Amino acid sequence: MKLVTTRSELSKIQETGLKNNTIGLVPTMGNLHQGHLELVKRSLQRTQKTMVTIFVNPKQFGPNEDFEKYPRTLEADLLKLKELDGADNIVVFAPQSTLEIYPEGFNTTIEVQGLDNLLCGANRPGHFKGVTTVVYQLFKLSGADMAFFGQKDFQQFKIIEKMVHDLSLEIELEMCPIIREPSGLALSSRNQYLSSSEREEARLIKETLDHLKELFLENREKALKKREDILFHEPRWQYLEVLDGSHLTEVSAKTNQVVVAGAFLMGDTRLIDNILFDL
Amino acid sequence: MKLVTTRSELSKIQETGLKNNTIGLVPTMGNLHQGHLELVKRSLQRTQKTMVTIFVNPKQFGPNEDFEKYPRTLEADLLKLKELDGADNIVVFAPQSTLEIYPEGFNTTIEVQGLDNLLCGANRPGHFKGVTTVVYQLFKLSGADMAFFGQKDFQQFKIIEKMVHDLSLEIELEMCPIIREPSGLALSSRNQYLSSSEREEARLIKETLDHLKELFLENREKALKKREDILFHEPRWQYLEVLDGSHLTEVSAKTNQVVVAGAFLMGDTRLIDNILFDL
Repeated sequence: MKLVTTRSELSKIQETGLKNNTIGLVPTMGNLHQGHLELVKRSLQRTQKTMVTIFVNPKQFGPNEDFEKYPRTLEADLLKLKELDGADNIVVFAPQSTLEIYPEGFNTTIEVQGLDNLLCGANRPGHFKGVTTVVYQLFKLSGADMAFFGQKDFQQFKIIEKMVHDLSLEIELEMCPIIREPSGLALSSRNQYLSSSEREEARLIKETLDHLKELFLENREKALKKREDILFHEPRWQYLEVLDGSHLTEVSAKTNQVVVAGAFLMGDTRLIDNILFDL
Repeated sequence: MKLVTTRSELSKIQETGLKNNTIGLVPTMGNLHQGHLELVKRSLQRTQKTMVTIFVNPKQFGPNEDFEKYPRTLEADLLKLKELDGADNIVVFAPQSTLEIYPEGFNTTIEVQGLDNLLCGANRPGHFKGVTTVVYQLFKLSGADMAFFGQKDFQQFKIIEKMVHDLSLEIELEMCPIIREPSGLALSSRNQYLSSSEREEARLIKETLDHLKELFLENREKALKKREDILFHEPRWQYLEVLDGSHLTEVSAKTNQVVVAGAFLMGDTRLIDNILFDL
């Protein structure tokens, strides 16, 4: 496994170690958990070389969000990656300065409209244009042929997919399943902010999504009514939606796939989760 | 010379006629005048094949601007291009529908901050993100190695240059000199909106820029004072600025090149012009 921390080291390794190989990109903000590792494993299966980027992107955090507090655990992350089968084919790009991603004077933003004003976008203004801008940069810097993202950030995936399509970027995207704790709680770097009682209570998130799915399959009206009741009685849900999974619009006669997605405020910690199912 | 009007025709011609040639792009909104033709000539000199795009881009017009009224003169434009030496090496891409540039559902915007909130940007909110978004699309669709722009839209050039740099686009840009009428009036498709007395009066634009340049070289304070007087006494100047030509900031001790730029409202017609000089 190789570690590079600057653009120039990255260029060098592209000229030597990566040239003529297919490259898979796994963009992360570090603090790797099994969800990330599954993305890396998938990339190792599908491409010859895998680039894991570890960069806590300031552009995607709001002024009152947890950018400063976000866990940075590079040493531990590297150990986890090294232990994977095929680790020889991993290059980790972990810039130690934001200037490696956004050089002095960088001032360009890429924004996908339409998909960004609901769900997480409604609660985190500017978040997704921070995501699309950094992801564009990582696509360019990595020269990747494929990129792997987790379904946990489903809206993020749809937005990146749209950017790739609209801007004709030559990269294939793959969305990988959510990895969960035995309780059903989706793995997230933010889970470590939870107390043990909060972690126990957090199982209600996935349970609620599953319950809405069951209701929906039985009787759509009932499910939508139930969703409203839940939002009314439990203000900790920042949002809870049952939407068309392709377009993130209301479910219609044309809907093939449904997403049930929620964001829940557990104390100060914002947890998101979603499930997808076909009709 | 070849004319294509759809994305699919364009792809076809790229597979056959353009492959393995260097390509120069001259993006226009049509209604070609000598200024445009000089860009095309320059491209014909520097590259093997030249793609001239003719597309009145709705995204760069404000709601109260002249999008509907903007002159569309495709037949005449094609004749002018055909008469150029080397016209065999020209492909004209003149989409007849905006869907050729922005397919159904297109929803992505590229925006360069910092350079866009002054000069034309201050008076035309959203204009430059319409420009950068269409120019990105034209770069992609054309597959061009070089692109040619006129100095008349100096701020536009600086913004496109920044986009190309920030997004690591693989295209070389060239800025070509302003072409003027004998009176000094910069050629523009919008000049045809002028009455003959307005056209005569419009010579004051270039004269004012030249005057400020002379004053500036003599005594900077005097030039900046004069600029204020002109703006105070002549409200038809939408802006008139003496700026650092590299960064469009105030002139400082580090300034190597100065731009004097103005926008003047002649009746309903907005005319822009600028001059550049080295210190």
